[in-house]
Amino acid sequence: MAKRTKYCGEISKEDLGQVVTLKGWVRKRRDHGGVIFIDLRDREGFAQVVFNPEKSRSAWEIADKCRTEYVIEITGEVINRDPEAINPKMKTGEFEIMATEINILNSSKTVPFGIEDGTPSNEELRLKYRYLDLRRPEMLANMRLRHDVTKTVRHFLDDHDFIDVETPYLNKSTPEGARDYLVPSRIQGGHFYALPQSPQITKQLLMAAGFDRYYQIVRCFRDEDLRGDRQPEFTQIDIETSFLSPAEIQAYTEKMLVKVMKEVKGIEIPTPFPQITYDESMARFGNDKPDTRFGMELIDLADVVKDVEFKVFQMALQAGGQVKAIVAKGAADKYSRKDMDNLGTFVGQYGAKGLAWLKVETDGLKGPIAKFLTEIEADLVAKVGAEVGDIIMFAADKAEVVAASLGALRNRLGKELQLIDESKYNFLWVVDWPLLEYDEEAKRYTSAHHPFTMPKESDLPLMDTAPEKVYAEAYDIVLNGYELGGGSTRIHKREIQEKMFEVLGFTKEAAVEQFGFLLDALEYGFPPHGGIALGLDRLAMLLAEEENIREVIAFPKNNRAIDPMNEAPGKVSPAQLFELSLNVTIED
Amino acid sequence: MAKRTKYCGEISKEDLGQVVTLKGWVRKRRDHGGVIFIDLRDREGFAQVVFNPEKSRSAWEIADKCRTEYVIEITGEVINRDPEAINPKMKTGEFEIMATEINILNSSKTVPFGIEDGTPSNEELRLKYRYLDLRRPEMLANMRLRHDVTKTVRHFLDDHDFIDVETPYLNKSTPEGARDYLVPSRIQGGHFYALPQSPQITKQLLMAAGFDRYYQIVRCFRDEDLRGDRQPEFTQIDIETSFLSPAEIQAYTEKMLVKVMKEVKGIEIPTPFPQITYDESMARFGNDKPDTRFGMELIDLADVVKDVEFKVFQMALQAGGQVKAIVAKGAADKYSRKDMDNLGTFVGQYGAKGLAWLKVETDGLKGPIAKFLTEIEADLVAKVGAEVGDIIMFAADKAEVVAASLGALRNRLGKELQLIDESKYNFLWVVDWPLLEYDEEAKRYTSAHHPFTMPKESDLPLMDTAPEKVYAEAYDIVLNGYELGGGSTRIHKREIQEKMFEVLGFTKEAAVEQFGFLLDALEYGFPPHGGIALGLDRLAMLLAEEENIREVIAFPKNNRAIDPMNEAPGKVSPAQLFELSLNVTIED
Repeated sequence: MAKRTKYCGEISKEDLGQVVTLKGWVRKRRDHGGVIFIDLRDREGFAQVVFNPEKSRSAWEIADKCRTEYVIEITGEVINRDPEAINPKMKTGEFEIMATEINILNSSKTVPFGIEDGTPSNEELRLKYRYLDLRRPEMLANMRLRHDVTKTVRHFLDDHDFIDVETPYLNKSTPEGARDYLVPSRIQGGHFYALPQSPQITKQLLMAAGFDRYYQIVRCFRDEDLRGDRQPEFTQIDIETSFLSPAEIQAYTEKMLVKVMKEVKGIEIPTPFPQITYDESMARFGNDKPDTRFGMELIDLADVVKDVEFKVFQMALQAGGQVKAIVAKGAADKYSRKDMDNLGTFVGQYGAKGLAWLKVETDGLKGPIAKFLTEIEADLVAKVGAEVGDIIMFAADKAEVVAASLGALRNRLGKELQLIDESKYNFLWVVDWPLLEYDEEAKRYTSAHHPFTMPKESDLPLMDTAPEKVYAEAYDIVLNGYELGGGSTRIHKREIQEKMFEVLGFTKEAAVEQFGFLLDALEYGFPPHGGIALGLDRLAMLLAEEENIREVIAFPKNNRAIDPMNEAPGKVSPAQLFELSLNVTIED
Repeated sequence: MAKRTKYCGEISKEDLGQVVTLKGWVRKRRDHGGVIFIDLRDREGFAQVVFNPEKSRSAWEIADKCRTEYVIEITGEVINRDPEAINPKMKTGEFEIMATEINILNSSKTVPFGIEDGTPSNEELRLKYRYLDLRRPEMLANMRLRHDVTKTVRHFLDDHDFIDVETPYLNKSTPEGARDYLVPSRIQGGHFYALPQSPQITKQLLMAAGFDRYYQIVRCFRDEDLRGDRQPEFTQIDIETSFLSPAEIQAYTEKMLVKVMKEVKGIEIPTPFPQITYDESMARFGNDKPDTRFGMELIDLADVVKDVEFKVFQMALQAGGQVKAIVAKGAADKYSRKDMDNLGTFVGQYGAKGLAWLKVETDGLKGPIAKFLTEIEADLVAKVGAEVGDIIMFAADKAEVVAASLGALRNRLGKELQLIDESKYNFLWVVDWPLLEYDEEAKRYTSAHHPFTMPKESDLPLMDTAPEKVYAEAYDIVLNGYELGGGSTRIHKREIQEKMFEVLGFTKEAAVEQFGFLLDALEYGFPPHGGIALGLDRLAMLLAEEENIREVIAFPKNNRAIDPMNEAPGKVSPAQLFELSLNVTIED
């Protein structure tokens, strides 16, 4: 048979009277008065193909054998449909192809789920038959959207003189950060490569090499327990530059994202993106990645409640903590007492001991704690800006617990009360991060971002005296409540990098053992440099309006890090293990 | 200091009289009559910066402290050099910058090798200080060339409706092909992922999903012993299509490569690329990846020598083997008897028992075997087209040995006799490959390409009776004697794939255990499909006119698969092994 002349979805007026050859999948076949109609599907859409035994008996006979998802090729003339057969919902709905030839290229068993019946509810089945799941037009659209994102990013960076450099996947294991995936070496028995959690050090070394502007769309690996939006491997838009300020790097990032939003979604995003500091973000949203598509900000009530005789509030304040509230607008008649109990359980997950709340009614504040607050009722209502029909919800605890619980509650209520304009894409920079976090369990400091982040110059003296007070030249970019990426200025002087390792609890020897090559490199003309990494999966997910990154990954793992299709990871032969000088210590 | 206004290498006439800010590395510093001259280098080139103490004493003082490879930023006015100071070899050689400001951004110890003194001879040192090696302008140029190649490839494929899809790196280990790199699973103790040797099955499944045209520039992994042009990880331009014929796929590949050659090298390559069959290539060049930039083809002498009483020839012919020769034009006075002995040792590596040869002199053929061939001298000279001053070299053995030894000899002599026009880029398709090879050691058939390659339709009946005679719908693309890539039509029917596994020695159970998901997929409307994979490292190497792929890889491994910079692979902690349910079985 001839070459394909068109995609099914591209049949248009111009083809009328033309003979076309199409190749694709049988979407539907129906027999109507002895004439067979096949809806044929390919990547670009559908077309209706007609087999009239009076036109071609042989073609009709083959068409009669076709079943759903058979792969066929057909040749025929494009004609207008009868007026009453026009399907205005279908792009090619005015036309049909009067087939004179057909070949069956492959058959199909009955598929385990309909290709066009919406998303199957059993995700494990979707992953097992991923090639069929990806055949669904929604999934194909998601994968094409993802490609449009990477294409736009690449073209932008190519046009701005960034050099795409491939960095190694077989790397060195480092004890910082998340758990590494290891790759045993055969030639060096007992030694292991590690798959990169990010090419952080490598891209810094490219700056030492004078590459000036680097990018890579690169796979990264973390062997962590999986949550809804995590995968063992994920993709990063990785950028590093020399001699640029954070503001300049941010400006490039904004231009790039503006272009992505324009090309992929047709949406104009104004620049510069708003910025707030980490501290302000925690104070106002209880969160370092605030969803700014709705209000319901946290309001500090220390002043208002400082004299009331409500023990919960007083204890929190006296212990150096906070009392804060959010106002759920118009929620009073939507949340029963039982609903409020559920919200109390919910904030319990974030460390809160309970959820105090008040409904604003025409005759005043009502609720379990109303009796304690009668004196300040007017002040309180004024302070939080509440109106009749609202619910005021309180947290009184350590600052971290107040932020975590009210921040989570705010996000939940934002969704439940449908306060979020889903058409909005709110980009936001969260700047001035703390350099370190204190790990209560390990009793040591860990990096808030990574150990190569530059402390604010003015805070350098605090590295010795009060590391927890040191801020970093670090900034995150947030989109609609998701952390999209993180950037920073990196350390480019050996003495600062050594100090950083010291604060993180490395001995001098351990620092040299693990990072000696970087420390050495810092002594050979390492330029000031900084960069950013953006999560491609998450960006694609948000633009595809999906809620799980698995929807924008062709072959994801399930939440036990298994690929249900090929059943990876699998057993390997004793010979393979022997060559790698390894024994498995468990049976199964 | 202000933002950089220009790259050093971009200073031009237009900047005269302008104040510029440059940032870069001190290439050279010299003091000339109390004035300091610094050659400043960045990614784009060099500029001369002048520090005159009469212009700015403070700048001069700082410049005086600068040493080679210090990182500095300077500001000053662009002026014309004195006529006698103009350097016509330097792009910016007519200009200099009269500096009024300078900051030292970082210092540098004395570098272990000069950044501009040519390629250091100690490659291990280059790899240990790769960030300095990459600072050398030649290496930066190689990495940029590589990026230009990928950029051109991507833009071409983007423009031709190929969808870039990322496939998993954490995959399933399969027993076919080369040795896998394994990745132990923590969650499924005792189970392993494998890093992909190529995303072969995955991209085929994307065809099952109806993606129609896929591409990816993707890392692949093979745990093999390393040769000069191998690395544990390498990069593939990976392409798969549905419904296209080999000729159509080849035409796309040609258009893509023509564009690469045009954009990257400014060279026009005519299309279509020449094609020869595998059998013809072996017969004429002794090689399945012939370098066609020079002649010296193998000439079959069976007819000419069939009656001579030279035992070596007779035995070879009687055993069903061959007698062939190549003619080294004008080599007679270049190769001594001792040189010929060395060539004899050389062909010994390819299984030849020795090298028979004759020099063509004015008074006839001379050499150790001349006396056996006196009768046929005229016929022989005519057949091989030899002239006075040439050497005729013979091989008489099994066809494989004749091909291997004369093929290797031809390549060696082509280089030694400088027969190769290095400015040429000879692309060539080698088509009609055998489907299988017979592995003498394992006593079984193995795939010549991979087990998913479609046999020629007409040869299908031979799969049961004479598998070694089956040809495949497979084609390699060759450039200047290097295999650049391989393509094929893939099997899209379950019964053929099952037959293929059977021929390869799989039991039914083993085939299902390893490849059941593919076999299943073949029953759900799998379209006819095929594709190609091209080695990016090799392509970039050839275009960069390098002889080793390490020269076009930013951070390669050495030939023991070690990265001398960070010393990967390394030891890991007992805790890491415990979590992975592994023991190391050797000490070190």
